[in-house]
Amino acid sequence: MLNPQSVDNETWLSRLATTSGEWLRGDGPESDIVISSRVRLARNIAGFPFVSRASADIRHQIVQLAQDSLNSPGQPSRRFVNVETLSPLDCQFLMERQLISRELARSDGPRAVVIADGERHSIMINEEDHLRIQVLHSGLSLEECWKECDQLDDQIEASVPYAFHPQFGYLTACPTNAGTGIRISVMLHLPGLRLNRDIQKVNNTAQKLSLAVRGLYGEGSQALGDFYQLSNQVTLGMSEPDLLGHVQRVVLQVVSWERKVRETLLRDGRAKLHDQVARAFGTLTSARTISSEETMHLLSIVRMGLRLGLVSNLDVGVINELFIHTQPAHLQKLQGEELEADRRNVARANYLRQRLSSSSVS
Amino acid sequence: MLNPQSVDNETWLSRLATTSGEWLRGDGPESDIVISSRVRLARNIAGFPFVSRASADIRHQIVQLAQDSLNSPGQPSRRFVNVETLSPLDCQFLMERQLISRELARSDGPRAVVIADGERHSIMINEEDHLRIQVLHSGLSLEECWKECDQLDDQIEASVPYAFHPQFGYLTACPTNAGTGIRISVMLHLPGLRLNRDIQKVNNTAQKLSLAVRGLYGEGSQALGDFYQLSNQVTLGMSEPDLLGHVQRVVLQVVSWERKVRETLLRDGRAKLHDQVARAFGTLTSARTISSEETMHLLSIVRMGLRLGLVSNLDVGVINELFIHTQPAHLQKLQGEELEADRRNVARANYLRQRLSSSSVS
Repeated sequence: MLNPQSVDNETWLSRLATTSGEWLRGDGPESDIVISSRVRLARNIAGFPFVSRASADIRHQIVQLAQDSLNSPGQPSRRFVNVETLSPLDCQFLMERQLISRELARSDGPRAVVIADGERHSIMINEEDHLRIQVLHSGLSLEECWKECDQLDDQIEASVPYAFHPQFGYLTACPTNAGTGIRISVMLHLPGLRLNRDIQKVNNTAQKLSLAVRGLYGEGSQALGDFYQLSNQVTLGMSEPDLLGHVQRVVLQVVSWERKVRETLLRDGRAKLHDQVARAFGTLTSARTISSEETMHLLSIVRMGLRLGLVSNLDVGVINELFIHTQPAHLQKLQGEELEADRRNVARANYLRQRLSSSSVS
Repeated sequence: MLNPQSVDNETWLSRLATTSGEWLRGDGPESDIVISSRVRLARNIAGFPFVSRASADIRHQIVQLAQDSLNSPGQPSRRFVNVETLSPLDCQFLMERQLISRELARSDGPRAVVIADGERHSIMINEEDHLRIQVLHSGLSLEECWKECDQLDDQIEASVPYAFHPQFGYLTACPTNAGTGIRISVMLHLPGLRLNRDIQKVNNTAQKLSLAVRGLYGEGSQALGDFYQLSNQVTLGMSEPDLLGHVQRVVLQVVSWERKVRETLLRDGRAKLHDQVARAFGTLTSARTISSEETMHLLSIVRMGLRLGLVSNLDVGVINELFIHTQPAHLQKLQGEELEADRRNVARANYLRQRLSSSSVS
C-alpha cells in the first residue's frame, strides 16, 4: 500500500534527510569493503510506446497505471513521490540517496518514484523504461536483493501486463537491457586500490569479465570518496542466477584484492598510513569551509583507517552517515534552506566539526 | 667575564635548547611582524692575516687573544664555546638559534663563539673575519642593538688593536664589509605578502634601496616559515646612524605594507583566511609525521592568524617557541638523542601534538 501521504512530500523528504539511508548503513556481509548491493529490473508495460516516444498524456497514464498497481491490497507500505513537481533540490536529494537515477532527476514530464519504508526498494516510473524496480541492501547480499526484486516484479506483473518477447525476453528502451532486464550492481569502497594505483587494473579486469566499473552516481560519474560500482553489462543469454553468481565471484575477488592491498599498506607503511588517516581527520575537524569532493575524499581515508584499527573513539556509522549527510542536497535539507556553493561549504565544515567534535584519532 | 664553565658545553647547550632564545621571544616594538633586530660588526685584529690566509696555529692564537680580551674584568658574563670540538649537531643547534652563522658551523680549524647570558649578543671568532660581534634583540630595536654593539666593540678594542685604515675604515676579509664593518639586519614575518604574491615586489624595492632580502639562515637560504631578513648591503661611505636610519625606514615601510595586505586579506577573504589558519592548526595537531619545512609553513599561517585575532586560546609565545624547537637540531637536543630524518619527523609530530594539545582554534 502507498502510505497515506499524511505529510506532504517536502516534509517527508526533510525527515528522510535526518536518517542514514539503507545504502550507507554500513553493515551486512563484507561491509568493510562492500557498501551496498543492488538489483534492478527494467520493465515496460505492454501496449504503450517506450518513454522516449510517449506523449505527456501517455506518460501520465503510465504513472497512473503503475501507481494503481502498487497501491493494490497486499503491497508493502510505500511513499509515492511525483518527481515532475519536485524541486530540483529534492530531486538531487533522492539521487544522492541512490533512490532515483540522475536520468530521472534531470528529465522532464510525468514521472515518479515509489519508495518503500526503510528505503529497501524503490520503483522509478518513466525513467528510460516505464518501470525500474530496484532493491538496495547494505553489504554484499545479492541473493536477498534478487529474491525481493523478483517478488516485487511478480506482484506488479499480477496487475500490469509487461512487454515481453518469447525470443528476446523483456523488451526495453535500450537493447542492452533487453532479455532479463536485470542490472546487478555492487558499491565497493576501494581506497587501498586507489592509493597503490591498482584501480585501473581493477577496471581492466572487470571489463574483461563483462562488468562495468562506474562512480558513485552511475554512468559517467566520478569515483567520489573511492566508491566504485561494479555491475553486469550483459543481460541477455544468461539466467538471473548465473549473472548473480558471476557478479558475486568478481566482487569477492576485488574484495580480497583490496584487503591484500590494505594489509600491504599496513605492513610496509603503517606510520605513513596512520599519518594520512590522522591528517584527514584533522582537516575534517578543522576546516572552516570544505567542498563535497574534498569531504568525500577525506572521509574515505578515515573510513579505511577505522576499518584497519588505526582510528579508535569513532563510530563507523557516523562516518557512513557523513558521506551522505554532507552531500549538497542532504546538507541543504538538514540546514532547512537552499544555499549557494560558498555558504554550503561553510555549513558543511560546521556540520562536520559538530558531528566529529566528540571523536578523536588515536 | 666568561662564565666558569661549571658544566660542559654539551650539557649547557642541551639546557639552552629547552629555552626560547632571544630572537624568537616575540615581543618588542612591531612584534606582530618584526621578529628580531640584529647589528653585527666585522673586526680583524691588527698584525694578523685574515682568517682565510691564517695557519691553524695563527687561528689558534687569535682565538686565545679574543678569549683573553673577553675574559677581562668588567666584561659581562658569557659562555665560551669551542666550535672546533663541537659535534655537527651542536653546530647546527647554534645556527638554528641564530648565534652562529652557517659559515662558522661548516668551516674547520680553530674557531669559537662567545655567547652572552640570555643570548643578547654573541661574538664569533674566526668566521670570515677574526671577530664578528653581533647583538640580537626581539622586535624592532635597531638603536638599542647598535648602542650595545658599539659598547662591546669599544670594550674589546680597549685590549685588542683592530686593523683600521684612515681612508677605508675597518679592514675586512671581504671588501663589501670594509668601512664601518656593520651589518644591520631585521627579521620579518611576512606571510601576508607571500599569500598575495607581493613578496617579489618587496624584494625588488629593497634592492633598489640597497638592501638585501634573505631567508632565515642568511645568504642563499630559503624563506622558511615566511621569515625574511632585510639587511644593508653598503657599509662604506655612510655613518652607522645614517645606515641604521635607512634600514629602519625601509623596514617600517615593509611592516606597513604587510599590515595593509593582512587587512585586505581579512576584509575580502576573512572566511578563507580563517579556514587556512584553522586547517594549518588542524594539521599541526593531527599529523603523525611532519617535516621541518611543512611545520614552519603551518606555524607561519597560525602565527598570522593569532595576530589577526582569528585564533584564540593560543599563546603566541608557544608558537614562536615551536618555530625554533621543531627545527632538526633543537628537536634532537630536546629528545636527548640523534635521530635520522624519518624518526625526527615522527618525533616532531609527537612534540607538536603534545605542545598544542591544550589549545584549540576558535
